Amino acid sequence: MMTSGSGKSFQDVVALNSSARLNRLAGFEVTAAANGTAEIVMQWSDDLTQYAGHLHAGMIAALLDTACGFAAATKAGNVTASHFSMNCLRPAVGRRFVAKGITVRAGRKQIFAKAELFSENEQGDRSLVATGDTLMVPLDR
Amino acid sequence: MMTSGSGKSFQDVVALNSSARLNRLAGFEVTAAANGTAEIVMQWSDDLTQYAGHLHAGMIAALLDTACGFAAATKAGNVTASHFSMNCLRPAVGRRFVAKGITVRAGRKQIFAKAELFSENEQGDRSLVATGDTLMVPLDR
Amino acid sequence: MMTSGSGKSFQDVVALNSSARLNRLAGFEVTAAANGTAEIVMQWSDDLTQYAGHLHAGMIAALLDTACGFAAATKAGNVTASHFSMNCLRPAVGRRFVAKGITVRAGRKQIFAKAELFSENEQGDRSLVATGDTLMVPLDR
Amino acid sequence: MMTSGSGKSFQDVVALNSSARLNRLAGFEVTAAANGTAEIVMQWSDDLTQYAGHLHAGMIAALLDTACGFAAATKAGNVTASHFSMNCLRPAVGRRFVAKGITVRAGRKQIFAKAELFSENEQGDRSLVATGDTLMVPLDR
Repeated sequence: MMTSGSGKSFQDVVALNSSARLNRLAGFEVTAAANGTAEIVMQWSDDLTQYAGHLHAGMIAALLDTACGFAAATKAGNVTASHFSMNCLRPAVGRRFVAKGITVRAGRKQIFAKAELFSENEQGDRSLVATGDTLMVPLDR
Repeated sequence: MMTSGSGKSFQDVVALNSSARLNRLAGFEVTAAANGTAEIVMQWSDDLTQYAGHLHAGMIAALLDTACGFAAATKAGNVTASHFSMNCLRPAVGRRFVAKGITVRAGRKQIFAKAELFSENEQGDRSLVATGDTLMVPLDR
Repeated sequence: MMTSGSGKSFQDVVALNSSARLNRLAGFEVTAAANGTAEIVMQWSDDLTQYAGHLHAGMIAALLDTACGFAAATKAGNVTASHFSMNCLRPAVGRRFVAKGITVRAGRKQIFAKAELFSENEQGDRSLVATGDTLMVPLDR
Repeated sequence: MMTSGSGKSFQDVVALNSSARLNRLAGFEVTAAANGTAEIVMQWSDDLTQYAGHLHAGMIAALLDTACGFAAATKAGNVTASHFSMNCLRPAVGRRFVAKGITVRAGRKQIFAKAELFSENEQGDRSLVATGDTLMVPLDR
């Protein structure tokens, strides 16, 4: 599979996702990854909830951080996160979740990406439940 | 079980932990919770890893955020997180992990807490792998 | 001047800006404030630099946080910041700076806003130098 | 002046502080800088306030970020901040302010530091008004 520079292709990112055990356990599916952006979908699972029955903050973080990481991987290959932050805007409940990541700046030493997490109800309506951003270090440079 | 004000007791926090499905799935164990502090322990599990075989950033976040939440719960009862951030200092690998949370300020409208995550090797030596902080809103006020 | 609900009008925000001594000292000018958004402009000043001659991180923070606060004020009146974070993408140098804030969610207890800071060169070309987000508590509710 | 490795001495940090125009304008004074830690003091000034008469969030950020940067400089020489975040715990008012920074981890590619900002009243009593952390990139490596 050809990639431009050190960036990963969609197929590379799908393989990367499959190689992460938690991503498989939680059922993350990569639905897009190209040109500095990525999208992940996860179906609702009662196993991944906190005490009130909403999606656990750790899973919100996992989705946002992974969307950032995959978005960055299309630009810079393998990366590792050094800082992550998120804002939880609304209770994370729904039929499924969609996380959209975008690279803000891919520098030589550091890569900045941000992501939005949407929940989808039975009618397919989406609402923004959380936002996040990740600062990463490229490993292949 | 008596609690001072609206704060939760150690037994309350243990029950709260058991009521969270992800915490049970990941095997979080509450080892301390009193006076604005809390400690959680989790054994290593290959199921909770990212692509390189380290603990997944989502689980690092889950441990840090939960330690913050339980620390706050001993002061303010039920809370919900609105902002979370973390710094990942070293690869999160080890035999088990210990997250220590402490309440920085418990106000009427907002509660600030911070946490440290340590990994423990086979010899029981600990190293600091991540730090985090959470801003929460009390739900019982 | 009529405002919808407790939100501030453009004139209110201009007056708010004038009432802040640091904003006057640094020469912040409010160029827009309505419907959950705000824009601030500041001319370059050698007085506001760090050791390498770039705009000081504290002033980057001041511009981003103020743009967030003014954006929120158009929705919710007086607010106070409890959490602020920023990413510094490029050296902050230029003829002048433009900070654009937008309200992400204005809840009853908390308000989330984000902002972008652009530097402008002699030709008027803009580049994104920093991004930030602020979590605020409304004071008038 | 000898420094261990690439780290700056107390005198180096004092000179660094003097070379930053905003630090001089605001009257930052370096009271300690060694072994990965630093302390800065600033006297109250009405010029540096926000609309309610408290110290401006930008100046809170300037103090916290500078304390982090000077702490890091004692370990790693010149650095530049890429991420900064802060929690504002209480209104920042007082006779003077003291910011204490400490290096959490000085890696080859990234340096993590955190800081606390205390306000001091007329009696010399201190209260913690804000906390912050900065992620920096070393420039001399």
